[in-house]
Amino acid sequence: MRGAILHAAGDVRFEERPDPVIVEPTDAIVRTVAACVCGSDLWPYRGISKVREPRTIGHEYVGIVEEVGADVKDFAVGDFVIVPFCHCDNTCAHCRAGVQSVCDNLGFTASGQGEYARVTQADGSLVKTDGRPDDSLIPSLLALSDVMATGWHAAVAAGVRPGGTAVVIGDGAVGLCGVLAASQMGAERVIAMSRHESRQEIARAFGATDIVAERGKEGGARIAELTGGIGADAVLECVGTDESMKTAFAVARPGSTVGFVGVPHGVELPVRRMFQKNVGLAGGMAPVRRYLPDLLERVLSGSINPGLVFDLTLPMDQSAEGYRAMDERRATKVLLQP
Amino acid sequence: MRGAILHAAGDVRFEERPDPVIVEPTDAIVRTVAACVCGSDLWPYRGISKVREPRTIGHEYVGIVEEVGADVKDFAVGDFVIVPFCHCDNTCAHCRAGVQSVCDNLGFTASGQGEYARVTQADGSLVKTDGRPDDSLIPSLLALSDVMATGWHAAVAAGVRPGGTAVVIGDGAVGLCGVLAASQMGAERVIAMSRHESRQEIARAFGATDIVAERGKEGGARIAELTGGIGADAVLECVGTDESMKTAFAVARPGSTVGFVGVPHGVELPVRRMFQKNVGLAGGMAPVRRYLPDLLERVLSGSINPGLVFDLTLPMDQSAEGYRAMDERRATKVLLQP
Repeated sequence: MRGAILHAAGDVRFEERPDPVIVEPTDAIVRTVAACVCGSDLWPYRGISKVREPRTIGHEYVGIVEEVGADVKDFAVGDFVIVPFCHCDNTCAHCRAGVQSVCDNLGFTASGQGEYARVTQADGSLVKTDGRPDDSLIPSLLALSDVMATGWHAAVAAGVRPGGTAVVIGDGAVGLCGVLAASQMGAERVIAMSRHESRQEIARAFGATDIVAERGKEGGARIAELTGGIGADAVLECVGTDESMKTAFAVARPGSTVGFVGVPHGVELPVRRMFQKNVGLAGGMAPVRRYLPDLLERVLSGSINPGLVFDLTLPMDQSAEGYRAMDERRATKVLLQP
Repeated sequence: MRGAILHAAGDVRFEERPDPVIVEPTDAIVRTVAACVCGSDLWPYRGISKVREPRTIGHEYVGIVEEVGADVKDFAVGDFVIVPFCHCDNTCAHCRAGVQSVCDNLGFTASGQGEYARVTQADGSLVKTDGRPDDSLIPSLLALSDVMATGWHAAVAAGVRPGGTAVVIGDGAVGLCGVLAASQMGAERVIAMSRHESRQEIARAFGATDIVAERGKEGGARIAELTGGIGADAVLECVGTDESMKTAFAVARPGSTVGFVGVPHGVELPVRRMFQKNVGLAGGMAPVRRYLPDLLERVLSGSINPGLVFDLTLPMDQSAEGYRAMDERRATKVLLQP
C-alpha cells in the first residue's frame, strides 16, 4: 500500500510501505475513503515536536472495513465506518464514565493518511452507517473522526448552555467546530476570535454571532466590551499555546470554565487567577466515541455540516502539498482522497 | 479596642488600636462574640508571605451588630450575625451567578481577631440568626464564616455526588470540613488523607469512611488500591502546595474534577496530565455568602457540627499562643474569645 511518511520536519513523502495487518483478534483493517491533515500533525511537521525517525502519520479517516479479527462481532467486511482517532473498548470503567480517550485499552490511528490503516478495539471504537453514504456527506463524516468531536468536547467541557455567551479561541478547524458545537448547544451569542477572513466566513456559517479579530490584550478588551464587562459564560480554548490559554482565562467570567482541547505546548496555567476568579479548566483529549452516535445523527439529518472546514481537497499522493498548504495557512484543513 | 496585630513573622501581639468606624453608608460594625485563626493566617505568620509592616489580622468571626451605616436596611443593632470573610453586595452579576467571592464590591474582614471589626456591604454579606443562639452553637456558627463554607466549596467544585468516592487532601480544618461536606452530599466513600491521630478522629466524626496516612506516591498507591485502580470520583484539594496538588491529580479518576480551595503557593499545574487524563480543576476563593443560608440551617437543625474543628479555645488576648499552637500543630484550629 501507499501512505504518507513523515521523514523529518517539513518532509512528508507519499510512499510504498507494508500493508497493515491484524495483530490482535479485536483489530480491523479499514480501507481509506477519505482522510485529512490535523492541526496537531503540524507540530512535528514544523519541528516543534521532535521527529526521531521516519514514521507514518495521520489519525483521521473514514472508510470501508477490509478485514476483521476473529473477535470482532459488530462489524463486517464492506461496512462504511467512522474511525475515532483514539480507539477504545467502550466497556472499561473509563469508557463507561464517558472518558473513552483514557480507555484501559486505548489505541490510536497511526497511518490514517494512507490507503489502509489498522483500528484496534474495532467493536468498541467504530461506528457504521447504513450502507455507503452519499459522497456529499463524506467530508462531514470524516470530520467526526476527530475535529468535530474535539470541538464538541471543548463546548461540553466549557459547560456551554442555552442562552449564554461562548467565546471560541482559535480559528483552526477545531475552533470552527467549537463554534458549531456551541451554536448547536444553544448559546445565544457565539464569539469567534479570528483574524482570517476565510475562516471568519466558516465561523459565521457555523453560527458565530460575533467575530473578534483582535488578539491578546486588545482581544480581551473587545470581549469585555461585548459581554458588558462581565466576561463569557463559557470559553473554548482550541489552540494549546500559552498565549491562547492566557486569553481564555482573561475573557472567562468568574465562576465559568475554560474547556480546552488543544494539545498544550508550553502552557503555564495561571493558577492564582483561576483561584481568585473561580475560573475552572476542564477538557483534554476528546473521547470521540462518546459523541459519535449523536454527531452522526446530526450529520445525517443535515443539522450540522462540519465538512465545511475542508477548503482544499487533494489526491492523497499530494499529501506533501497538503501539509505545505496548512503550514502556510493557505488552507484551513486539507482533505485527502486515496 | 484591643485586637491582634501581626508585627512580623512569628510576632503576634494583642494590643490597643483605634476602633473601626463606619466609612461607607453600607458598612456595619460588629462586636466579636467568637473569632478564630485560619490556616491562611499562618502563611504570613511563618514568613512565607511577606509582612512589610504591622497589620491587623483575622478574617473569621461572628458577633453582634454594634452600629450600622445609613444605607443598611436589613440589619439592626443587636442582631447576631455570621460574617463571611469576603464581603459582597449579593446583587451584582457575579453574586447572582453564585460567585460572591468575586463581587464587584468585594471586601474582606481585616481585623477579625479583635473586639470589633467592620463589615462592608452589610446587607449583602451578613446572615443573622433569630435571637442570640445558644452558646453551644457558637463554634459551629463561627465555622460558617470561612472554614466550613470553604470545605463545602471544595466539595461543590469537585462535583461530589451521591454514591461516589471522594478523596480529601489536607487534614487542616478546611480539609476536615471538606470531609463533612462530601459526606453531607452523599458520597458513599469519603477518604481522608491524614497523618495526625487527633485529626483522623475528627475526620471520622465528620463521616470519613477511610483514612490514608501515607503521602505522595505511597498515598497515591493506597488510593488506587482503595478505588480498584480507577481513582476517585471527586478530589478536594484543601492545602494549596505543589505537592498536595500533584497528589490530587494523581488520585483523581479520568473525567473527574479536582476542587481546590487552598490558596495556591508555588503550585505548577500538571497541564499535560490534565489533558491526557481529562481531569479538570475548579474552585478558588469560596463564595461564602452563597452557602450560608443552607449551612446555617444545617447547623441549627443539628445535621452538621463543624465547630468540632476547634480543639483549643483561648481568651483573645492570648492570640499569640493560639498562633503558636497552630504553627506547631498542637491545635487544629484555635477559637478566640474576647
